[in-house]
Amino acid sequence: MDERAFRTAAADAAGRLTDHWRALASCDLPVVPPGPPGTTLKALPDSAPERGEDLAAILDDTWRTIVPELVHWQHPNFLGYYPTSNSPASVLAELVTAGLGVQGMMWSTSPAATELEQRVCDWLARALDLPARFTHASRQGGGVILDSASSAVLIAVVAGLHRASRGRWREHGTEGRLRVYCTDQANSCVPKAVRVAGAGEPVLVPTVPGAHVMDPAALAERVDADRAAGLVPAAVIATAGTTVTCATDPVPRIGAVCRERGIWLHVDAAYAGSAALCPELREDNTGLELADSYAVNAHKWLRTGTPCDVLWVADRKDLTDALGSTASYLRDNAGDSPEVVDFKDWQIPLGRPMRALKLWYVLRAHGLAELREVIRHDVRLAALLASLVEQEPGFHLVAHRFGLVVFRADTDDRTRELTRRLAEEADVLCTPALVDGRPVLRAALGSPYADETTVRRAWDLVRARAVSAS
Amino acid sequence: MDERAFRTAAADAAGRLTDHWRALASCDLPVVPPGPPGTTLKALPDSAPERGEDLAAILDDTWRTIVPELVHWQHPNFLGYYPTSNSPASVLAELVTAGLGVQGMMWSTSPAATELEQRVCDWLARALDLPARFTHASRQGGGVILDSASSAVLIAVVAGLHRASRGRWREHGTEGRLRVYCTDQANSCVPKAVRVAGAGEPVLVPTVPGAHVMDPAALAERVDADRAAGLVPAAVIATAGTTVTCATDPVPRIGAVCRERGIWLHVDAAYAGSAALCPELREDNTGLELADSYAVNAHKWLRTGTPCDVLWVADRKDLTDALGSTASYLRDNAGDSPEVVDFKDWQIPLGRPMRALKLWYVLRAHGLAELREVIRHDVRLAALLASLVEQEPGFHLVAHRFGLVVFRADTDDRTRELTRRLAEEADVLCTPALVDGRPVLRAALGSPYADETTVRRAWDLVRARAVSAS
Repeated sequence: MDERAFRTAAADAAGRLTDHWRALASCDLPVVPPGPPGTTLKALPDSAPERGEDLAAILDDTWRTIVPELVHWQHPNFLGYYPTSNSPASVLAELVTAGLGVQGMMWSTSPAATELEQRVCDWLARALDLPARFTHASRQGGGVILDSASSAVLIAVVAGLHRASRGRWREHGTEGRLRVYCTDQANSCVPKAVRVAGAGEPVLVPTVPGAHVMDPAALAERVDADRAAGLVPAAVIATAGTTVTCATDPVPRIGAVCRERGIWLHVDAAYAGSAALCPELREDNTGLELADSYAVNAHKWLRTGTPCDVLWVADRKDLTDALGSTASYLRDNAGDSPEVVDFKDWQIPLGRPMRALKLWYVLRAHGLAELREVIRHDVRLAALLASLVEQEPGFHLVAHRFGLVVFRADTDDRTRELTRRLAEEADVLCTPALVDGRPVLRAALGSPYADETTVRRAWDLVRARAVSAS
Repeated sequence: MDERAFRTAAADAAGRLTDHWRALASCDLPVVPPGPPGTTLKALPDSAPERGEDLAAILDDTWRTIVPELVHWQHPNFLGYYPTSNSPASVLAELVTAGLGVQGMMWSTSPAATELEQRVCDWLARALDLPARFTHASRQGGGVILDSASSAVLIAVVAGLHRASRGRWREHGTEGRLRVYCTDQANSCVPKAVRVAGAGEPVLVPTVPGAHVMDPAALAERVDADRAAGLVPAAVIATAGTTVTCATDPVPRIGAVCRERGIWLHVDAAYAGSAALCPELREDNTGLELADSYAVNAHKWLRTGTPCDVLWVADRKDLTDALGSTASYLRDNAGDSPEVVDFKDWQIPLGRPMRALKLWYVLRAHGLAELREVIRHDVRLAALLASLVEQEPGFHLVAHRFGLVVFRADTDDRTRELTRRLAEEADVLCTPALVDGRPVLRAALGSPYADETTVRRAWDLVRARAVSAS
């Protein structure tokens, strides 16, 4: 290894990245790339080279071939989906994590990787004011860092199936009798997780009319009817901050239904969970003491790069009973100690990198006070955008919560035409979706470079493409 | 953002990492940390700080608190599990990937991320001489980068369940009738994936006596008996290079059994698949034209840091039919184009980082010729270690293939005592396992810093702890 070549290339890359971030901040880059499908493929040779190339040449190619054809998720005009956040501290942590190159499947395969993860999951649980039972310090529950909220849902579903079957699931599978419940407002990863877990399509519980949240009475009715029919209700996936409108299911009442009936309750707070960092935005925490598991994507709103999802469980034994494995080559004396956590038994895959360094760097480099201001800043910008929508003739505000603003034009045809034009011009990215069957556009704040000026400018771009009402 | 602080910290980290790699190369660091459970936890405060801290201070703490309590997976005396590889090019790529911070769930959410991934998966398929049907260039199959071989197995199982049920699985789940097959030599992630997929415990097919590989005749018998009993054989998970002894199931004959009966065949080549980079080590490729899917962990033996598993499928439609989702907010016009691949439908989670940059950097920076020499170097070192074992009185060579050497002492009690002493001294890391119910120790070569000297020194450490036969 040529040490000097690596140090030079790392410094070069760091410089290119800060230039890149500055270009994003000043909107000097398009948010969406210009090329049609196949642009990057055409620019890349058909085969890997036989002889090695200089790191400098590879960096050059990255900026020549790859960067121009990326969507820039931290661009101020990126208002799509939910944000994927980032920060210099997070990027630095990825460099160090990669350089240390450890694999943390068990405590014994890298003790510090495991213990740091326990600690930062506890840090975040406390910062979000989650129930103490979700902390490792409780010695019963605890958090684990995963790649995605999707994986958190899958793990919750699997643990729920296992528990509801009283362990029979592990040997015999779902047997067509175990049922999982959510609403049609759950993220697409929820029905996918239920299918992947072999439980078929989830049961869709009706929503409260007009509110896009689960109707707890309807849930109780459905669960009891299924049970009477010989089925086994295993898990309910509730959402705090749905994808389309950022609505939050009534967790206290859903939790009561689940608790009475011994059903696993997972609360997917992938986006909105981070808001609880601010005491005044902690409304969604109510009822969480009734949840068996809870997940937040730190990579959405906490300045942590993707992937970084935190899943907390109230009883770690539920997880390790369902997901544990004891092959001969995975046995060690450490694993028998009650003090030791083997995170391989808290996730689907066996292997895992050191996941916690990134969140540790971000929480320390920013500090909780600054991260709260990040949330408040985005919430203020969303309020500004919502007010601009409301003031605009021909536009209607459909939903507005935390950093999300959902709007439509005055007719569905005009919304569709606006969506088409925005995709064509591609200088501001909103996500089209459906609310009550009607087309809408979603705008989610979260760029670290967004401010009142960028929001007003982005809105000007949107309204300029509106079809005249006249 | 303070640009200068980030650039300084990145340069600082790069320097610390090259120092770290030099210390590993010269065995100046212990391979296993000294502290008992709780050492890192005790060193970390109970709560995240309110105010932000300097990146330099966080780097200092990383090297003071975290690095001393890690297991160093690239240490020359790390012979455990299978290797987790790394290289400066891979680390550089992680820095750039993190800095660009994109999310590549769909083509439209970052076209270059998707197309680069298609291209490097094709590069690796060609370099490994895999069947052309596994390439994106075939327009029917293709590769995708995942976090782990575990995830590849889960995806294969799910696609197999879907296909075998003729789509009924998607709505109704496994219904207790779908069966998945492997042997007791499959990695622990295989039965776990089958359980997670709701199909219960896999059917364990007998192995050929003494050979630790699947008996194809026994597979056919078992499958036909299950079918006669009204069950639905859905998938077979074969292994090329098992975890314990690096044995390879007879894929041509297993493939014939599967092909005749319409059963999904996945070949898990997590470790051994990389050997096919060398024409003279390509024996495990025979019969792969009968497989539906195939996976290799580039992070094991290809100088690519974890995580980087590549899963190839012969028919992408099998995957997207099973895993596809079409929520309103995930629809775009691009997705309808036959040229466009949306990798969210090739994996379990919805979101994903830009995964391909790392493999692109490694393949380019090293070149295929050098990577072949990496493989050959480790194979030579393993041959050396195997010969040292064979020459040593009181030791027996149990298995030796590619970079893996499996050995035991002359009695099981002596093997157990040796295992205990090695764990206590902790200056060389081998993995204990069981072969035919007898305790063994596994030593897998793969450190980028290993050479004949380090292998001889590591072996001296092992033999010095052997219980005298006298």
